[in-house]
Order: sequence, then structure tokens, then C-alpha cells
Amino acid sequence: LSSKFESLNYEICENQLYRDAELKSGHQINLRRIQLNRWIACFLIGICTAASGIVIDILVHKSADIKFRFILQPLVDRCDEGADTSGTGCMWLVQLAWMAYNCSMVFLAACLVIFWSPIAAGSGIPQIKCFLNGIHIPEVVNFKTLFVKVFGVSAAVAGGLCAGKEGPMIHSGGAIGALISQGKVHKKCDPGFFREFRNDREKRDFVSAGAAAGVAAAFGAPIGGVLFAIEEGASFWNQALTWRMFFSAMIASFSLNATLTYYFHQGGLLSWNGLANFGVFENKTYTIWEIPLFLLIGVIGGCTGALFNILNFKISEFRKKFVSNKWQRLLEALLVAAVSAFAGFVFLLVVDDCVPIGLGMNKTEGFNRLYCKKGEYSAVVNLFFVNPEEAVRNLFHSPIGSYKPSTLLMFSILYFVLSVWTFGLAVPSGVFIPALLTGAAWGRLYGLGVEKLFPNITGIDPGKYALMGAAAQLGGVVRMTISLTAILLEATKDMTFGLPIMLVLMIAKWVGDFLSEGLYDLCIELSEVPLLGWNAPKMARNITASTVMRPDIVAMEKRVRVGRVLEILSATSHQAFPLVDRIDESDVSRLPDYGRLEGYILRSQLLTLLKKRAYRYEWEEDLVGSMVSEDEFLDADCRESQTPVSEEDEQAWVDLSPYMHAHPHRVPLNASLPFIYRLFRGLGLRYLMVVNEDNRLRGIITRKDVARFK
Amino acid sequence: LSSKFESLNYEICENQLYRDAELKSGHQINLRRIQLNRWIACFLIGICTAASGIVIDILVHKSADIKFRFILQPLVDRCDEGADTSGTGCMWLVQLAWMAYNCSMVFLAACLVIFWSPIAAGSGIPQIKCFLNGIHIPEVVNFKTLFVKVFGVSAAVAGGLCAGKEGPMIHSGGAIGALISQGKVHKKCDPGFFREFRNDREKRDFVSAGAAAGVAAAFGAPIGGVLFAIEEGASFWNQALTWRMFFSAMIASFSLNATLTYYFHQGGLLSWNGLANFGVFENKTYTIWEIPLFLLIGVIGGCTGALFNILNFKISEFRKKFVSNKWQRLLEALLVAAVSAFAGFVFLLVVDDCVPIGLGMNKTEGFNRLYCKKGEYSAVVNLFFVNPEEAVRNLFHSPIGSYKPSTLLMFSILYFVLSVWTFGLAVPSGVFIPALLTGAAWGRLYGLGVEKLFPNITGIDPGKYALMGAAAQLGGVVRMTISLTAILLEATKDMTFGLPIMLVLMIAKWVGDFLSEGLYDLCIELSEVPLLGWNAPKMARNITASTVMRPDIVAMEKRVRVGRVLEILSATSHQAFPLVDRIDESDVSRLPDYGRLEGYILRSQLLTLLKKRAYRYEWEEDLVGSMVSEDEFLDADCRESQTPVSEEDEQAWVDLSPYMHAHPHRVPLNASLPFIYRLFRGLGLRYLMVVNEDNRLRGIITRKDVARFK
Ligand SMILES: Nc1ncnc2c1ncn2[C@@H]1O[C@H](COP(=O)(O)OP(=O)(O)OP(=O)(O)O)[C@@H](O)[C@H]1O
Ligand SMILES: Nc1ncnc2c1ncn2[C@@H]1O[C@H](COP(=O)(O)OP(=O)(O)OP(=O)(O)O)[C@@H](O)[C@H]1O
Ligand SMILES: [Mg+2]
Ligand SMILES: [Mg+2]
Repeated sequence: LSSKFESLNYEICENQLYRDAELKSGHQINLRRIQLNRWIACFLIGICTAASGIVIDILVHKSADIKFRFILQPLVDRCDEGADTSGTGCMWLVQLAWMAYNCSMVFLAACLVIFWSPIAAGSGIPQIKCFLNGIHIPEVVNFKTLFVKVFGVSAAVAGGLCAGKEGPMIHSGGAIGALISQGKVHKKCDPGFFREFRNDREKRDFVSAGAAAGVAAAFGAPIGGVLFAIEEGASFWNQALTWRMFFSAMIASFSLNATLTYYFHQGGLLSWNGLANFGVFENKTYTIWEIPLFLLIGVIGGCTGALFNILNFKISEFRKKFVSNKWQRLLEALLVAAVSAFAGFVFLLVVDDCVPIGLGMNKTEGFNRLYCKKGEYSAVVNLFFVNPEEAVRNLFHSPIGSYKPSTLLMFSILYFVLSVWTFGLAVPSGVFIPALLTGAAWGRLYGLGVEKLFPNITGIDPGKYALMGAAAQLGGVVRMTISLTAILLEATKDMTFGLPIMLVLMIAKWVGDFLSEGLYDLCIELSEVPLLGWNAPKMARNITASTVMRPDIVAMEKRVRVGRVLEILSATSHQAFPLVDRIDESDVSRLPDYGRLEGYILRSQLLTLLKKRAYRYEWEEDLVGSMVSEDEFLDADCRESQTPVSEEDEQAWVDLSPYMHAHPHRVPLNASLPFIYRLFRGLGLRYLMVVNEDNRLRGIITRKDVARFK
Repeated sequence: LSSKFESLNYEICENQLYRDAELKSGHQINLRRIQLNRWIACFLIGICTAASGIVIDILVHKSADIKFRFILQPLVDRCDEGADTSGTGCMWLVQLAWMAYNCSMVFLAACLVIFWSPIAAGSGIPQIKCFLNGIHIPEVVNFKTLFVKVFGVSAAVAGGLCAGKEGPMIHSGGAIGALISQGKVHKKCDPGFFREFRNDREKRDFVSAGAAAGVAAAFGAPIGGVLFAIEEGASFWNQALTWRMFFSAMIASFSLNATLTYYFHQGGLLSWNGLANFGVFENKTYTIWEIPLFLLIGVIGGCTGALFNILNFKISEFRKKFVSNKWQRLLEALLVAAVSAFAGFVFLLVVDDCVPIGLGMNKTEGFNRLYCKKGEYSAVVNLFFVNPEEAVRNLFHSPIGSYKPSTLLMFSILYFVLSVWTFGLAVPSGVFIPALLTGAAWGRLYGLGVEKLFPNITGIDPGKYALMGAAAQLGGVVRMTISLTAILLEATKDMTFGLPIMLVLMIAKWVGDFLSEGLYDLCIELSEVPLLGWNAPKMARNITASTVMRPDIVAMEKRVRVGRVLEILSATSHQAFPLVDRIDESDVSRLPDYGRLEGYILRSQLLTLLKKRAYRYEWEEDLVGSMVSEDEFLDADCRESQTPVSEEDEQAWVDLSPYMHAHPHRVPLNASLPFIYRLFRGLGLRYLMVVNEDNRLRGIITRKDVARFK
């Protein structure tokens, strides 16, 4: 496991200051104010997440506009004029322009990511999952990442990559949650809002609210968002938090809807809409004999999903080894952009699937004119040259006959390959929409097959099968069930297919789990993040605390000289130090014999104490009490370097007792690993002390020590 | 807090036997088998819950059939013949027959409850909530209760009470979960299935799956079911459990659908359906300026909901004091049944609301003929004399003009009063449907008002407002948000109104919480169940373990004489006894001085040890090891009386070390109450040991001791 990730402190440091705070007058009112502020923060998170969604949507929309209106249309028009003479040559021109545009967009996205915020690459869901699990991945929820994510994903999607904007939206939501709750953009730009939320515990809760809002904005699915945060994210969770998550999600999807309806001139008519709008299934239904057919789709989805994961994992491993250089990564991104665009054109040329207008929807007139006769349009264009959400919608709702089976087959394979290659590139890109699109394509093909098999039965609609295929493929890749059901139902605004979607997702998950891990888990494994799973590893009952713990503890006494503190801080990189009543270092060859456990103190607290010069030159017994107030610890940063201290000061005494956590969690030496695991998992601990039968400190266990056991 | 409720043991007893089990060969396979069995059990739970739903539905249906076809119709026909001569007299006859039928049905339900299973009264949701929270309410999930619940609720609904069948369905689901997972119907009827699930921990998980399945069956809302179990119930929860709950819920709603469609001759066409079917909103939408109107509905709902709760609480208190006798309770139930039926007729006479046929739906022909001219039907009949789900559907979907405002006003007030009175009667009855119906009535009235106010705007549909009113009223009563949103959306099979429903529910909850507690919480408060809330009480940081704990511990040493065990078992009623290495009782006036904490043992374990005669007459140091296998503890029952022991045996020694939980959770004396609360809540503990700085036992804290702090 990588040591570059620190754990978050979910535990409340219950020290003297914390207890005294309650005795102050006005504490009740203060609590109520904080409670209110929580809701206000959640409201703001909802609004801002919606705003970021709106920015992404409008940017993508505008970019498509520019591409078609100002670049392609003139070219196509020019071609039209000289149609007879230079047919093919002209087409190449269009293609070149198209590729150039796409590549420049992807160049932008990749540059942002590679040179500014590498963490913003990919979907961001694994990162958010890790954060919520209790791991601090550096920079994962700061402003830079948010900025790069929002503009990067817009550029990547505008650049025609097989990438979705939904995963990045969720990451953006999480980042917004963190930023707003901390009430500052950066250390240097700190208006001082919401100071009471400046600890990892609160931050983590707001990040989960932000993630829920992100899903809500992306799919117009507030319930799905909450379920997503519960199913995938929030390891530590309670009822009040659920309500706040729900509130954020609701506000996000509401304000996104309201704004976008105005923007697209639907003025005031609030339909249920997110960024991903898959259209409504109207008057469609299914009968009981179709259930086995759906189940088979689930099986296929599980297999193809697992295949996706395995291939992508291989590519990622390859990338990690051989495409590590910045320029190489940039080049790879450009290459994928070029290949994606090129593949589209080749596909267009090879598959000659022109359908009379009226059968399906058509949008991209320019292309149609280029490749089809008047009064016809190209089915391929409707898949490859529109934005992917629209392509999914087309596959779901186009009437029978809109697509040839061969087109669907080739498209799904091509898109599958491209999306395997794309996911993990150095651009912000999600996997939801590509998976849905791949699945919708093969699902529709499957539907056509079913129709062939049962020619006498009416009511078999390939669109329905496309929906199931989409669900199966996505379920096979990400292995979510309930949240995905809710998301798909909310995104299609329809309840009719709820039951089959659930069945399909469940089957896809089972089959997929049998073959490989989920995509996000593979990502996490690859980046060596010490994620704490839901359950303790099997066969661990006989592993005891004494094997899990580190016995060579660095501990202190409660009253300690500044010099000693400095020494420890510079000699070790630990984040917490147990405090004991006596350290007996008589025998140098062995570990010192520690006395009774009295508490522990964090590195950040020690740094603050030194910075505030909270020490005394003379030790007087009656001069107890804290010299630093609780507030001053708020902005403590363990990554700060320590302030220099004069030689005289080194002899001074610090009294740590008012600041230490006075009753840390402890287990005896014979506690089993599952027992320890449940403690860490259930309470969100970071440190656990191991004591012997006399309550003498014998070892320390961190979250990471536990996560090491798989 | 009442002492008649014991806590459940959610904690795994990690003793030597448990550890040794892992070392046996075949343990891996065993684990896998158990895992598979979990899914199988969940499948069965889904199926059986659906079956109980089907039974209820068909019974209610059949009863209505009998009532109308064989009793009322002939009477009405007879009246028709002699219409001119004895108009009113005849009506009284119909009314009498109607009342007699209803009363006999309610009599049946009340007798079942009062004389057989008193715990089956009411909705059952509070009971399930308590069970999931970790409290064993006697008989709450056994077969008798299930039986009474299923048949009782059918009779109560058939008896025309203002009662829903949804709450009882959820309780039934929970009971089914418990029964199936324990693999036995009764102690005496035990085929021995699923023996591995015979502990409170597993049972609790299956009960939550059953509850989810119950919601799914009742409303056709699997997602709502899972959310319900998460939001209201499952205090201790993890991802795998969520998936299993979801699976149960899915299976339940699927098999219920499939069966009911066949029963009602829709053969194979699976629509999305539960017992409560509120019909689909088609082609309805809303615009942004209606949002404030919806919010106002939320406020009203919060107020009327709180009013409902307060009034019902007062009535319940009154009942507890003055209607405690069995016969009194039976009489009250009959009285309510009679009044309900009578009120309907009076209402019918007073409000003369006949509407031309064609405007709305009409069903109950007999009555229409009695009160309205030919070609007309009575709007009142459509509200009062159909089953409540149908009434809700009528209010949602009838066209404008189907109901006069005065009818709606009077109906909502009347129904409100009746349902306040009904909830808490000695019959199984839920509050969901009555609240929805009341809300739908005043919501529709509100809609008519809005229409009057803005006569120029088209698209104001009172049905829409009826939906919002229903949501608001129910939300104001039960104070759920996400789960209720999901349930309502799934039950109306429509996503369009998702956002306003959420807003309304959120507002209703806020307003309601400001005025009173939720209905279920009031029920729980009234029955003095020691429920452990989500968060520690405020202002508790300075309450420490030393004040919470019981210092006068009854403890034992690990090696103890049988006589001593017997003495302790009979002298105390505690369920667990700490084990220490030494007990120093030198000074009789003070509490004994306990040595180091070594573990604890449960009463049920001690009883089993005595029953199996696991003791030795001579104490030999080398004869260690367990004399009873893990399996034999499975059917341990702490409520069993102990086996008699001969005088000689009393001198024998028991070695408790292989059976005790060897590393119980412990806190120091200075641990704060919130800290302790988090431990209990996060890990589902029942016992917590308090030790001093030398790890010597100083006190014991039970779940109930903590729940006492509010
Ligand atoms: N005060 C300490 N004295 C001795 N060893 C410690 C102490 N704190 C942590 N350790 C051990 O040192 C190892 C790594 O040290 P580190 O302090 O970085 O913790 P970590 O496991 O990385 O967790 P975190 O994510 O909190 O940094 C761990 O195995 C941990 O058990
Ligand atoms: N072994 C024990 N010795 C002394 N006091 C105990 C012991 N076990 C429990 N108690 C205390 O006795 C009181 C009531 O006893 P009881 O054993 O019934 O526990 P309880 O609080 O009712 O919890 P439960 O629901 O587990 O029965 C509680 O205050 C508890 O702290
Ligand atoms: Mg570290
Ligand atoms: Mg008790």
C-alpha cells in the first residue's frame, strides 16, 4: 500500500477543551447555529453543483454548435457545390477539420490535467469513494481539481472522446462539498466562513452530500444520488446526514432543471431532467415470458462488463509502466482522439446504412447530405456524430428498422474498444455514458434478434432491449445495483421497467463479480490506496492485535520538554503519539517499557502548540489549564513545517493534558482482527491503542495497518 | 423505561470455540454455504412476504364482493321494488346490514388481537423499528403475530375501518424474515433449517430484509422498501445487507405482481403494481410558479400531521389509563366500527353530491341507485364506500368537477377525526392509507381553490394537488422523507412529480418536527421502549462513564463452582456477567474489589453449560478445553428455567474460559457519554465494561443504561 495517502481523522478529539466548550454559556445557541449552518452549506452545495453541471452542459452544447455551424457546415456547403468533381477529396477535408477540432479540444483537456491537476484525470468516482472511506488523497477536493474537472470534461466530451460527463460531475460535486464546507478556496484566500466545519469529520459528510448532489445533477436523479452515496460511498453514515444529502441532491437537480429549461427556452415548464436525458418510454410494457430474455441480457452484460474491466486493467497497468512521461500521456490522449474521430469516418464509409427520414430522429444534417441521398439520413451519423446521450436516446426510442443489425454489431464492438482505451486517459472522463451506449447498441441488436425469433408476437420493441442492455453493461462494469436502478429509472422518467432493470442489474453484478472485480475497485487497487473494505478478510479470527500492531511505539509523557517534542516530530513522520504515564527506558537494547495509556495527541496539535508557544519555562503544579483555545487548533495543518525554536525554549515544558484525547479506543492484546476491523469500520477510527492486561501501552494500530490485510 | 424489553445480542461472542471453528477443515466451504443460504433465505422471505400480501389482498377483495353482491345488492333490489312506499325505512335497513357486517368483521379482528396476540395491534412499524434498533419485544416476530396480523388486518379493512393494510404488511414482512431465517415456526415445531442463523445478529438482518420486502409488496416499491429499511430501521447496516434487502424486496414485488395479475386476469402483463395502486398520472406536468403553492401544502401537511400525532397521543394516553380492560378494548373497536359506518351514511344523507355518470369513475352501483337519480352517481359513495386505495385513486385522477368543495372539506375533516380515533385501536391497522386519503381530500380542495384564484391559467389540475396533499399529510404524520418519496413515486409509477413531492415532504417534516414528534416515535415513547436514538443527547460531553455505569457489578471468576453459578443465576436477572481474574470481598460493607477484566459470559451460555453438565468434580490444571461444542449453544434460550442440580454437583467446578467473550469492549472511567453512545450505536453493543486505569473492572453499562439518557 502506498504511503503517500494519509488517513482522515473521523474521530472527535475529546479533550479538556472540547468538554469545557460545553460549559460555556451560549453553547446551546452555538449548536443550533451550527446545525442551521449545515443546512445552509448543503443548500449552497446543491446550488453550486448544479451550476457546475450547467457550465459543463452549456460548454458542450456551444462547442457542438461551433463545430457544426461554423466549421463543418461551410465545408459541407462548399463540397455540395462541387459535388460531382471532387467527391471523396472533399470528404477528407471535412474529416480533417473534424479531427483537428477534436484533437485540439482533447489537447486542451489533457494539458489541463497533465500540467495542472493530474488527480483530475479519469472519472473521479474512485477518488471520492476513497475519500469517503477515510483516505486523504492529496488535492482531490480542492479548487484546482474542480476547475480542471469542469473545464477538462467539457473539452474531452466536446472533443468526441468516448467519455461521459457524469463521473466527473460526481467528483465535482464532492469537491464543491469540500470547498463550501471549508468556507475557503485556498489557504491564501480564506474569507473565514463555516469555521466550525474545518475538520475532517464534517468535511467528509459534506463531500458525501456533494457527491449525491453530483449524481442528482448529472442524471436528474436525487434518490439515485442518495443511494449512490450510501451504496458506494458513505462508510460512516447516519440518518441526519442522509436527509442533508437528500436536500443537497434535491436542490441540485431542481436548480439545474430550472436553469436549463430557461436556457433552452422551455420557460418554466419543469420537466424532470438532468444532464443525461434518455427520453421517456411511453406506452411500453413487457410480459412475463420476456423475463428470461432479460435475465440472459444480464448474463451477457456481466460478461462484457467484466471483459471491459479486465482489458482496462491491463491497459492501465501497461500505461503505468510505459506511458508514464507527461508528453507520452499527452500524445496518447491526442492519439485516442484522432483514432476515435477517424474510426467514426471509416465506419461511416464502410457501413452504408441510410434510412429514409421520418423513421428515426435526425440532427446532423451536414453529414447526412454528405453520405446519403436526399430524403434519407445516416443511422451511423445518428450514433457516432451526435453527443453520446443523444445516441443512447436514439437507440432507446427509434422505431424498429432505424438501424441495421450489422451497424449495431459493429458499432457496439467499436465503441467498446474505444471506451476501454479511453477510460484512464489523462483527461477527465466518465464511464457511465460509454457503457450505457455500448450496452444500448448490443441490447438493441439482441432485441432485433428476439424479434426475428418470435416473428408472430407483437410488442417486442428493440428499444426496451436496448434499455436492458444498457443497464446490464453498466452494471457489469461498475457493479452497483440499487443506486443504478434508481438512477436509470429517474433518468428515463419511467417506472414501468423498474423490475426487469433490477433483475438485470443483480444478475450482471453476480456474473461480473464471479469474473472480475468492479472497475472502480480495480482502479483503487491499481493506485494502492488503503481502502478499508466492508468486511474483515475471511479466516482472520485467529489473527490477534499483537500481530497487527506496531510494537515499537513512539510515545510521550503528558508533561514533556519542548526539545523532546521537536526531536520526535523531526525524527518520525507519525501523525499521532500516544501519551503514557511513565516511560521506562532502563534497558537500551529492548523496547522501552511503557506505562499506562493516558491518551494520544496529534502531530498537528503539537505543531500548533509550538507555533503558539504554549509552553512554560518553570514547571509549577498549580499552573494547569490550557494556554491555547479550541479555535486556534482549527486551522492546524499537519503538513506545515514546524516553527524554529530557540535553545532556551527547548528546555521549557509543555503540558499536553488539556489537548490530548483523554480516552482513546483501546483493545487488549488478544483482540481478533475481525473485532478490530469492526471497530475501525463502525466508528471510522484512525488509531487504535493496544494495551496489555494492566492497561499498559503495548502497541498502536492505524487504519492502514488494518487495511493491509486483504 | 420498561424493563420488560430485553436487548438483542448483536455482538459476536468471540470465544475460544468461535476461534477454533475457523481452524477446522471445511470452514471455508461452510462459510460459502452460509453465504449462499443467506441469499436463499432472502429469496424465500421475498416469496412468502408476497404470499402474505396476496392473501390480504384477496381476502379484502372477496369480503367486499360478498358484502356488495350477497348482502347489499339484494336489499337494494328489494328497496327498489317498493321505492315509493318505504324510501327512508328501506335505507335504514341497508344501513343496518352494512353496520352489522362491518362490526362483525371488526369483532373478528379485535378478538384475534385481544385474546390471542395483543402485540399485533396497530401498524407494527414502531415494533419493527424497535426490533431493528436492538430491542427484543416479546413475540413481536413470531408465527402467532404473523397470523393475527395477516387475518386481522384483512378483517379490519374489510370492516370498513379507517385503516390501511400497508403498515401491517411491513410488520408481517419482518415477522416472515425472522421465521424463515430461524428455520422454525415454534420451539416445538422445528425442522432444523438454517441453524446457522439462529442468533440475534443474523435474525435482525433478516428482519430488515423482511421489512423491505413488506414495503415492496405493499406499495410495489422495492427501492422505497430498501430506503425505508435504511432510513427508519436498520441501525446497523452494511453494503452486503443492502443488496440482500434489495433482492428480497425485488422478489416480493415481482411475485406479488405476477400472481395478482393472473388472479385479476391480466395474464402475464406485468404492470408495476403493489397492493396500493394509486394509478398513473399521465400527461400531467407542473410549472415553476406552482412550487410556492406546493410548499404551502407542505406547511399545511406539517401542521395537520402534527395535529394528528398530538391528538392520537392524547387518545392513546387516555386509552392506556381508562380502556385497559380486554372487554373495554373490544367494545371500543366495535364502537369505532359502528361510528365509522354510521358517519358514512349520515354524510351521504347530509351532503347531496350527485354527479352525472361519465364525469368520474363509479363502482358501487347499489348505493348510487339508492341516493341519486338514474344516470347520476354519488361522489360521496366514491369516497366513503369503496376501499380507501380506490378512494385515493379517485381523488388523484377524477376530472375537475367530480367533487364539490364542500364534500371534500367535510370528508377530509371526518376522515381525519375517524383515523385519529382508529389508529391505536386493538386491531391491526396502518396509518399510511388513511393519511394519504385525508391529505388527498384536502389537497384536492386546495387545488380547487387555486383554480378559483387563477381562473385564466389552464393546466391546474386538482388531482396534482391531491397528490401533494396526500404526500404532505403522510409526511407530516410519519416524518419520513427519502423513503416516502421513493414509495410514492413507485406507487404512482410516475417520475414527473418527484421534485415537488420531495419538497413537500421535506417542508412537512420540518414544520412537523417543530410542532411534535413523529407518530411512530410517539408510539415508542408511549410504550417505554428503550430506543437508542441516532445521536447522543446534547450537552452530554461532561457526563462520564463513571456516572452512567452500574458500579455494583455481579461478576465471577473464570473458574467457578456450580453452586456459585446457580446462586448468581437465581439471585439476579442480569443477562451477562463479567469475568475477572480475582474478586476481593474482604470488606463486606463495601463493594467487592474486582480484579482485571478477562471477559464476559451470557446467562444463556451458563444455562446451557449447566444443562449439558459441563463441569468437573476435581479440578485438574491440565484438563482444559471445552466440554460443549459451539452448536449446542445455538438453541440456548435465556428465558429457559435452569435444570435442577444435585448437592454434590454444586461443589463441582466449571471452567468458563473457553466460552467467554475474551476481549469485550471496554472504556476507561473518564469516557464521555457521546463517546459511549457512538460505541453502542456504531457497533450495536449490548454490554460495555468500564475499567479503571489498571484495567480493573469498575462497572458495567448496558444498552438500556445509555438509552435512559434523552
Ligand atoms: N506513534 C507511533 N509510534 C510508533 N509507530 C506508529 C505510531 N503511529 C503510527 N505508527 C506506525 O507506523 C507505521 C506508519 O506510520 P504512519 O504514522 O504514517 O501511519 P499510517 O499507517 O501511514 O497511517 P496514516 O494514514 O494515519 O498516516 C504504521 O504501521 C503505524 O502502525
Ligand atoms: N452483571 C451485572 N452486574 C451488575 N449489574 C448489572 C449486570 N448486568 C447488568 N447490570 C445492570 O443492571 C441493570 C438492569 O439489569 P439487566 O441485566 O436487566 O440489564 P438491562 O439494562 O435491562 O439490559 P438488557 O436489555 O440487556 O436486559 C442495568 O442498569 C445494568 O447496568
Ligand atoms: Mg502515513
Ligand atoms: Mg433486562
